[in-house]
Amino acid sequence: MVDVCLLGTGGMMPLPGRYLTSLLIASQGKMILIDCGEGTQVTLKMCGWGFKAIEAICFTHFHADHIAGLPGMLLTIANSGKTTPLTIIGPIGLETVVNGLRVVAPHLPFEIIFIEVSNDKANSFDIHGFKIDTLPLDHGMICVGYNINIGRQRKFDALRAENANIPKIFWNKLQKGEEIFFEGKLYKPDMVLGESRKGIKISYCTDTRPTENIISFVEEADLFICEGMYGEDEYIVKAVEYKHMLFSEAAFLAKKANVKELWLTHFSPSLLFPEEYLEAIQEIFVNTKIGEDRLIKELKFEI
Amino acid sequence: MVDVCLLGTGGMMPLPGRYLTSLLIASQGKMILIDCGEGTQVTLKMCGWGFKAIEAICFTHFHADHIAGLPGMLLTIANSGKTTPLTIIGPIGLETVVNGLRVVAPHLPFEIIFIEVSNDKANSFDIHGFKIDTLPLDHGMICVGYNINIGRQRKFDALRAENANIPKIFWNKLQKGEEIFFEGKLYKPDMVLGESRKGIKISYCTDTRPTENIISFVEEADLFICEGMYGEDEYIVKAVEYKHMLFSEAAFLAKKANVKELWLTHFSPSLLFPEEYLEAIQEIFVNTKIGEDRLIKELKFEI
Repeated sequence: MVDVCLLGTGGMMPLPGRYLTSLLIASQGKMILIDCGEGTQVTLKMCGWGFKAIEAICFTHFHADHIAGLPGMLLTIANSGKTTPLTIIGPIGLETVVNGLRVVAPHLPFEIIFIEVSNDKANSFDIHGFKIDTLPLDHGMICVGYNINIGRQRKFDALRAENANIPKIFWNKLQKGEEIFFEGKLYKPDMVLGESRKGIKISYCTDTRPTENIISFVEEADLFICEGMYGEDEYIVKAVEYKHMLFSEAAFLAKKANVKELWLTHFSPSLLFPEEYLEAIQEIFVNTKIGEDRLIKELKFEI
Repeated sequence: MVDVCLLGTGGMMPLPGRYLTSLLIASQGKMILIDCGEGTQVTLKMCGWGFKAIEAICFTHFHADHIAGLPGMLLTIANSGKTTPLTIIGPIGLETVVNGLRVVAPHLPFEIIFIEVSNDKANSFDIHGFKIDTLPLDHGMICVGYNINIGRQRKFDALRAENANIPKIFWNKLQKGEEIFFEGKLYKPDMVLGESRKGIKISYCTDTRPTENIISFVEEADLFICEGMYGEDEYIVKAVEYKHMLFSEAAFLAKKANVKELWLTHFSPSLLFPEEYLEAIQEIFVNTKIGEDRLIKELKFEI
């Protein structure tokens, strides 16, 4: 089971009643945060999931509305009692930007591990069971999208274990992933486990123009969180100029990528009532939601 | 006439429903902001006084809860259309700290003028008619308090002008502050103006332990905005350790300095209901208010 909370839905600047776009993903007591603009720590406090379990913060890019809340967030995480390392992931230049902002948060009780992702290829790594993939996006500055994949353990297959004549006393340890060497023979977890099972895939793409690469990157995602800066198609000139997307462009990406569900976010400050466009957008991709601050969903593994 | 708005009342970290301590002062179409923690731009937006007229931002010190909102504030001021210089005032090291934070706000359409104030003496300067004085405070890092004095123009004194035989054609120009040289004689504004008149004095002291110097610094202030981190006197050990004040300590300062009114602010996140202590504190200094986010007052010149 995986819980996601869209902490905010704003783009450009925080507004009364609209925090900046940021996503929190929780699974098995660990959390990943994507983006951290000014005020993200406050909406996270309202969400109530705590700060101590944050293992990684991923940044799409270094515009202030996506990262300026970092120093306050680090201090509040510190205040939560965390002492284990925190991983911070983002485009090349990450360490310089973070260290600039940390001029007001120089002393922390935990280590920071930096992972700078290349912008000319996809990157992939594992943080506490979250498999994280990145994709270069098309914005005014170097920017990446994220897939967070949460794998599912394979089932124990007793028949398989019996057929392979594996002593029963080893079954439990093998199921838990241990390898055992006994009387000249090596027993591996693979020998007692069934077919691999589908995990959960969450995709997060902002800020960007729509690209063909996004379609294959977010393909079949259980939840696709995508920027929609403008509701009306008339804003296409602005969207192209500032390298953002229309609601309709995000919906076409969702449709082509055959995702299960689309949440729109990163609304322009001038877009006061994004829900007014829902009906029109659902004609392109029916399972669309207009993001709301602290919109929460529990994603379940397939039975 | 001078308007003040206490934009927030929190200390340490922003909370749902409580922005960080910050003060906005407006007079004759110009504004001064003191402190700018994470979220200050949002509460300022709620206050509705706009961003473009901000001429100076004063910082007491460089703890994140007083300055981490600066990059977002600068971008929002930029977005308001301001192109004239912005003065930023704060303790020694200001430029380094601001430039660190500006890693996410490098391009602005206005110049920034830095004024770094010495911590071993009082400083005084004039910004667009606001006379600003600073005083070193007693906190865990270099920290200064501010007096903002708004002067009042002297009245035109016709009798005085007549007695001095000043030609009537010059009266208007002299009243407006011009000097005139005519037929070998220098006419000065002073010759047509009455007694100097009392201005308005606003004092802002946070974060600090109470000191004797604060008393003389804030003496006779029309409004004294002072930190009160803890409501109960039992917290004195904590207040001493972290270099903050009890409500009662702030009230004794107000009483000794004979200020007109005291507003308490910079409440500890653990202090959920500061108004519970009001009655007890008013026994020390009757004209005390417990600060609230966006508490507004119009200060009038004496008749």
